[in-house]
Amino acid sequence: MTIRVPLGERSYEVLVQAGALQSYEAREWEQAAILSNTSVMPLYGRQVLEAREKLGLSTISHAAPEGEAAKNQAEVSRAYDVLAASNFSRRGVIIAVGGGVVGDWAGFVAATWMRGVDFVQVPTTLLAMVDSSVGGKVGINHARAKNLIGAFHQPRFVLADPQVLATLPSREIRAGLAEVIKYGAIADAGFFAWLEENLDAALAGDAGALSHIIARSVELKAEVVGEDERESDASGRRATLNYGHTLGHAIEATASYGKYLHGEAIAIGMTFAARLALRLGTVSQAEGRDLLSRQTRLFERAGLPTRLPPECSWAQLRAAMALDKKGRGTSLNFILPTRLGHVELRRQVDEHTVQQVLDASS
Amino acid sequence: MTIRVPLGERSYEVLVQAGALQSYEAREWEQAAILSNTSVMPLYGRQVLEAREKLGLSTISHAAPEGEAAKNQAEVSRAYDVLAASNFSRRGVIIAVGGGVVGDWAGFVAATWMRGVDFVQVPTTLLAMVDSSVGGKVGINHARAKNLIGAFHQPRFVLADPQVLATLPSREIRAGLAEVIKYGAIADAGFFAWLEENLDAALAGDAGALSHIIARSVELKAEVVGEDERESDASGRRATLNYGHTLGHAIEATASYGKYLHGEAIAIGMTFAARLALRLGTVSQAEGRDLLSRQTRLFERAGLPTRLPPECSWAQLRAAMALDKKGRGTSLNFILPTRLGHVELRRQVDEHTVQQVLDASS
Repeated sequence: MTIRVPLGERSYEVLVQAGALQSYEAREWEQAAILSNTSVMPLYGRQVLEAREKLGLSTISHAAPEGEAAKNQAEVSRAYDVLAASNFSRRGVIIAVGGGVVGDWAGFVAATWMRGVDFVQVPTTLLAMVDSSVGGKVGINHARAKNLIGAFHQPRFVLADPQVLATLPSREIRAGLAEVIKYGAIADAGFFAWLEENLDAALAGDAGALSHIIARSVELKAEVVGEDERESDASGRRATLNYGHTLGHAIEATASYGKYLHGEAIAIGMTFAARLALRLGTVSQAEGRDLLSRQTRLFERAGLPTRLPPECSWAQLRAAMALDKKGRGTSLNFILPTRLGHVELRRQVDEHTVQQVLDASS
Repeated sequence: MTIRVPLGERSYEVLVQAGALQSYEAREWEQAAILSNTSVMPLYGRQVLEAREKLGLSTISHAAPEGEAAKNQAEVSRAYDVLAASNFSRRGVIIAVGGGVVGDWAGFVAATWMRGVDFVQVPTTLLAMVDSSVGGKVGINHARAKNLIGAFHQPRFVLADPQVLATLPSREIRAGLAEVIKYGAIADAGFFAWLEENLDAALAGDAGALSHIIARSVELKAEVVGEDERESDASGRRATLNYGHTLGHAIEATASYGKYLHGEAIAIGMTFAARLALRLGTVSQAEGRDLLSRQTRLFERAGLPTRLPPECSWAQLRAAMALDKKGRGTSLNFILPTRLGHVELRRQVDEHTVQQVLDASS
């Protein structure tokens, strides 16, 4: 199925279709550069390359190293060199084939090559399909912090083929499901209930279940992004996407590097946020307890952690949470549920309360 | 006076006012980074810094090397480091104080820091006031070609203070006047006639004449830019701004490095384009001869060259013109006058004709 991301003249479509990657040629563009990483290029980047070559369409490809290492200025510079060497023009398209890191890096290259060229996302992880490939955020890391350097650059098209998830490690599928569960929790109680019914099918790799999960997540994100393309309203609806992220980001920054995948950290963060909501009373006791237990059960079935890791100290988490992008100065801000399928931003939450609820969550 | 650049939610104002820089504080922003170069910072960057410090507003400053050397990835990276070291936030403003190079470099930093932060242009050359500070084009050079890396990032405000031109070398004033004369030639015959009357006053540094020149040029450019913000229509009205640029760029690329200022090269290019128009008949013989002679006379009074330099060979110019951004493939495209104050794009001009007219122009 096809989902439209409504952004005026920058609107685009996300195609969710099992098997679509096999025959994808991006034939609208005479010139293409496929950017991927060394592990995904041989699996999926090459498919697009070969499909285009069969049509005689000019195509170059370039692979960055695997992992977060692609997201820095040196790798951006390497990509520029490849484009320059082949006289890559304003009329070409950059096709990102990979997970969120590849999409962020390749998207930044597309945003800044000749003041912006067309960009197609072919996400190959569940997380990238349901999250980073929709919304136009692209960028790289600076030595001092992640994602400091970047732009908004909307893709022209996104191709999400659930079949490619067959080669994705199960841990990555589970981590992606954390964001999926988040969409249900913040915006669609019916989808949350559907996940309770169909999680096992998705975990077993059922293409129908995965397709529905991807399509509904993209729809929900597209709606939010369409209201605030550049996240210009820090307390606007786009901020609701950060449910679980205040603590989640702090855990990612605090726990030993690479110990938690993003989805794992935000599962802990969402569990904590539901507890904090109960404590602060943004949700009724009855609804709050029901929400917390259903959410926790779903995370557990998905094999996701819900408890704070013991190695993260309060002092470290406190410092990391104050740096969160929702923060102004050093106040602690959280997205908290008000009922299943609805959340709100709560600013300047009392530090002592946060610490108490955290202590009870570990 | 104030000119509005009409770009929807990205609209902004250009203030043209003698003496305005002395008291400029950018007080709308709590945090500012002044980016300039080593020669302009002590003259004008420091003024803004001190005005803000008096108000107790958080301000950092950083100077790039002088000249085109600022427009590369290493200098962008240095600016990022300065911003990161001072925890420069999304709510800060980057203030570019300098000529076109500083504006392009600092604007690219603003476009890419935390996915885009506010940006103010304080142009300190005539060329930057009438051209590069309006339109949102920002960027840096790649080793293979100029301006390959960049973005569109509109400023929030432009402050053009003609008083700063008092410290600008006369040759730079004259080169800036080439773009000014261009605006008359492509879009406003009345302004062209006004320039014929008032050129001497402008060359003598008369603030009133310079203010009118800057304001009218900005108005004319703003009108064109407002119609096509991202130059997405290669044959659209924004292309008319490239009058004189097909040959002008080729001369800049071909003559020994730094021999011609941009304005000098396009004065030669416009003179050639007027001759080519006569030859191709895009303009009537009577009007064309009148236009060519008035334009040539104005360039000569401004101390600008109009004849092709002997060291530029046809083979070199031909190759450089084919790479011009208006070109598709290797065809030769020119913006040609149809009468004074009006031009049109002519594609695929016969190479032999171009060569003949060039031979007659040297």
